[in-house]
Amino acid sequence: MPVTKIAPSKETLERIIQQIPTPFHLYDEGAIRARARALQNAFAWNGGYREYFAVKANPNPRIVQILREEGCGVDCSSLTELMLAQSLGFSGDEIMFSSNMTPANEFEYARALDAIINLDDITHIDFLRRHGGIPEHVCLRYNPGGTLQSGTFVMGNPGEAKYGFTKEQLYMGIRKLMEYGAKSFGLHAFLASNTTDNSYYPMLARTLFELALELHAKTGAPFFMINLSGGIGVPYQPEQNEADIQAIGEGVRLAYEQTLAHTPLAGVRIVTELGRYVTAPAGWLIARAIHEKHIYRDYIGLDACAADLMRPAMYGAYHHITVAGKENAPLNRVYDVVGSLCENNDKFAIQRPLPHIDMGDIVVLHDTGAHGHSMGYNYNGKMRPAEVLLKMDGEFELIRRRETPRDYFATVMNPQLETVIRQMEEKGVRA
Amino acid sequence: MPVTKIAPSKETLERIIQQIPTPFHLYDEGAIRARARALQNAFAWNGGYREYFAVKANPNPRIVQILREEGCGVDCSSLTELMLAQSLGFSGDEIMFSSNMTPANEFEYARALDAIINLDDITHIDFLRRHGGIPEHVCLRYNPGGTLQSGTFVMGNPGEAKYGFTKEQLYMGIRKLMEYGAKSFGLHAFLASNTTDNSYYPMLARTLFELALELHAKTGAPFFMINLSGGIGVPYQPEQNEADIQAIGEGVRLAYEQTLAHTPLAGVRIVTELGRYVTAPAGWLIARAIHEKHIYRDYIGLDACAADLMRPAMYGAYHHITVAGKENAPLNRVYDVVGSLCENNDKFAIQRPLPHIDMGDIVVLHDTGAHGHSMGYNYNGKMRPAEVLLKMDGEFELIRRRETPRDYFATVMNPQLETVIRQMEEKGVRA
Repeated sequence: MPVTKIAPSKETLERIIQQIPTPFHLYDEGAIRARARALQNAFAWNGGYREYFAVKANPNPRIVQILREEGCGVDCSSLTELMLAQSLGFSGDEIMFSSNMTPANEFEYARALDAIINLDDITHIDFLRRHGGIPEHVCLRYNPGGTLQSGTFVMGNPGEAKYGFTKEQLYMGIRKLMEYGAKSFGLHAFLASNTTDNSYYPMLARTLFELALELHAKTGAPFFMINLSGGIGVPYQPEQNEADIQAIGEGVRLAYEQTLAHTPLAGVRIVTELGRYVTAPAGWLIARAIHEKHIYRDYIGLDACAADLMRPAMYGAYHHITVAGKENAPLNRVYDVVGSLCENNDKFAIQRPLPHIDMGDIVVLHDTGAHGHSMGYNYNGKMRPAEVLLKMDGEFELIRRRETPRDYFATVMNPQLETVIRQMEEKGVRA
Repeated sequence: MPVTKIAPSKETLERIIQQIPTPFHLYDEGAIRARARALQNAFAWNGGYREYFAVKANPNPRIVQILREEGCGVDCSSLTELMLAQSLGFSGDEIMFSSNMTPANEFEYARALDAIINLDDITHIDFLRRHGGIPEHVCLRYNPGGTLQSGTFVMGNPGEAKYGFTKEQLYMGIRKLMEYGAKSFGLHAFLASNTTDNSYYPMLARTLFELALELHAKTGAPFFMINLSGGIGVPYQPEQNEADIQAIGEGVRLAYEQTLAHTPLAGVRIVTELGRYVTAPAGWLIARAIHEKHIYRDYIGLDACAADLMRPAMYGAYHHITVAGKENAPLNRVYDVVGSLCENNDKFAIQRPLPHIDMGDIVVLHDTGAHGHSMGYNYNGKMRPAEVLLKMDGEFELIRRRETPRDYFATVMNPQLETVIRQMEEKGVRA
């Protein structure tokens, strides 16, 4: 089903902008809760199911707290993500630590929190034994190699990805971990990113279910968890189909019924690590048109740039754009919509049909609730933006303040910079 | 002339690492000074020549201070870059403000510093008049459109770039600016990025010289400056040729002699805004090999990632890699050299022939002195690295401290995070 791209109304945006100047990311609490619940409904047939929200997608404490209230765990990939989880009260098996090329202190920290360790490589077994110790329950990441196809379409290229164990390494790894005292295992794989194809998760689940049976038969290892990881995407383009999460959950159930249901692994807990699916469509980057330019193309310059949203610059990613109050206006202009970086990939849209944009118009970039703020940088000395939560009751809350020059200069601070910053603060200049 | 890739010795690196743990960017003061001087020698024939170092390439105060000592000005593109320049004592025509889609407060700040304004667009004339006022001397950025070819090789694609005035807009713009009180003009163009082709600058200079003559003939406008902008690159790959800066300066001189030398514009000041050329080869990202992995490919995992150096992830850029103490060892392995991000583009090298790498080896990524640290991000909650200066006397100096979780969480700080951070600080855990 093709998706309709919606955003908060012009009136709502203007009400927020009166207090919080553009640019900022705006998140819809209701939409986040609804998406988390839809996901949990789709997997409710599995008694032990849990979504571990991938914190890297949106590491804002308030957003992660909302997902905690919805019963989600967290998927952490680094020390600071573990710290964030700890500060919100997550502990033990509410935390998945899925990392790769992991520093020693991160394993130690994750073990101290008793997080579920999702091991990326066979060499990490001895490394973890030295740095934190081998837990009773441990998850292993599988990489089947080759390419992942859906019909003739290549969904992913695991053979070129840096993650996971080969199948042979899984056998060896489980035997070694059992020698080291591990009692029960999980199995994880991530084979495709941002796919809205409803067949991906069921295909992946079947692969992991069958592999778990095979590993169990050969090693006797019990399995406490099958981790389907992330990968379910969102339709960034309006003509794309939305993933049907209910059908996906049902597809995974069918794979379960046909493989594990009547085996010693029956009842195994199924978990997911979705980030993008849960929060991407519930976020928007709100900016203002501040310049228009007409040379060999027509340009609209925003007060936002790739420091606020990097996906178009890094991946050439499409983000849908609407103009507040002009949602139904004819798309009778073609613009490059750009930021202010001295870097020509700082373009939010290239040759995009849009309504006529006037200076001062509120320009809305869609689907920025995941991998938006978290991928921002400070190139050209630009500040990263604020984040605002639109709450269930219609009120809004500043949930991350905008960076300031004091933040930007923190790691090189000196008395001369201090003087300049103070002068600027006294004048109330905003960077 | 193909370049030989050199780096500080293993002994030097080990001496630094004893005090400053990897990863960090290391800059060679002597090399930076030598490159600035070579550039200035190449253009010494022009009495008013000045290099305006493009701060975005390396916005470390200590590096910019070194270039100030060498007589360079600064090319700033944002408020914080202007603040950095101000803190180092730059003012007036030592500062070039080359921006695009410029916010009002940045024009105002640049005007308050009496910086040279390099206007990007014809609509910026009235915008600047309202926000800071029209200066007596003003520079205009030219975009010729189309593609820039050197023989059959496409060097740049100005027709798709968001920058500059068309030629017709230059006429109109100069007339308008003269009405508004401007007395003298500069002309700027940036048509290609990171080119080591010695013909680029002379070709660009001839274009701008002839254009200035044409504009002068039609409007009577005096010209105080021709700004050749950036664009001169460095050979990231060892088999590439290095730009011959002396030949480039001579080529620009020849273009000058053949166009402006005996005209009313004779003696015009020529300036450049090079960043990459001056500092890129004088910097290295110093990391440790902490993991090796053998699945469908052989991987080396570093304690650095795209947070430390983004160019490979964003542009697929090549950065040469050597291993300290193994500079002359046979390249008898093929590795993907990767960081720890949960993001498969976090690869510093793909299928790269390298010597056998042992765990703990010091791995050196070359040419990170420009667009290295300045393009770092915090994705996956990773910290951005320290910067270290290797001084003329052989000593070293920490010129930027590594980020900490306290920096990372600054814009979302709350009492729970404060508690977790304090606990971590007490334990001395390093993120």
